[in-house]
Amino acid sequence: MQYAEFMNEALAEAKQGLAEGGIPIGSVLVLDNQIVGRGHNRRVQLSSAIRHAEMDALESAGRMTAKEYQHCVLYTTLSPCAMCSGAILLYKIPTVVIGENRTFMGEENLLRERGVNVIILHNPECEELMREFIKNNPTLWSEDIGE
Amino acid sequence: MQYAEFMNEALAEAKQGLAEGGIPIGSVLVLDNQIVGRGHNRRVQLSSAIRHAEMDALESAGRMTAKEYQHCVLYTTLSPCAMCSGAILLYKIPTVVIGENRTFMGEENLLRERGVNVIILHNPECEELMREFIKNNPTLWSEDIGE
Repeated sequence: MQYAEFMNEALAEAKQGLAEGGIPIGSVLVLDNQIVGRGHNRRVQLSSAIRHAEMDALESAGRMTAKEYQHCVLYTTLSPCAMCSGAILLYKIPTVVIGENRTFMGEENLLRERGVNVIILHNPECEELMREFIKNNPTLWSEDIGE
Repeated sequence: MQYAEFMNEALAEAKQGLAEGGIPIGSVLVLDNQIVGRGHNRRVQLSSAIRHAEMDALESAGRMTAKEYQHCVLYTTLSPCAMCSGAILLYKIPTVVIGENRTFMGEENLLRERGVNVIILHNPECEELMREFIKNNPTLWSEDIGE
């Protein structure tokens, strides 16, 4: 599959999160061109402070070796915050593909400084989903990004 | 309570983790001099890639407001890795008290650069616990830090 197809899987996760009453951010973890983990933000659903989409995808993949992570690509519909970027650095995931970074700019510079390949797709559907959500849920969104 | 007393609570979490067959790292989250979250590394127990001790403590505290996090102190028996440091930055936790950083040096420099007050206690019990664990479980330890 190409970037766009895996991003569609991350988008499907984001939409599922929205349908559950949650924050519409989705992520998939891909190893050797296969999805090995997938998830979405579950702050609302699990009353969780740590289940951002990327963390949820990493958790769903379960325990993996350092070598496996180092062959992964992480897809996320939104630019990854400091926590999710830190997880990417911990596990030395070499490539991160981001749906959009206009509604929220995460730690892309830090990732690049540490050698991570950061690819931005500027996907209009990812952006519209977040823009609409933030407009309608500003307090919940602020909570999710610690602001 | 003073630093040493809260660190003893984090140590109690670390020892509980060890008793469960897990990695002996513990953490407590303190707001206005009261423990509001506590946890320990649960990689083994939950087959989790994200439940480092600090993440487990944040998760046990549940959903908190940005303002609350900004009045917290996070105690951890071991220097926080990139993921846990990222969570500290996301939630703008102003002070982190660390048991020891000799068996593993986390992202203390990044935290300081971003204005976090980083306090190292050089607690011999924290250090001995990790030194013994790493000696006996080098593969598991490598997995936990993505190496």
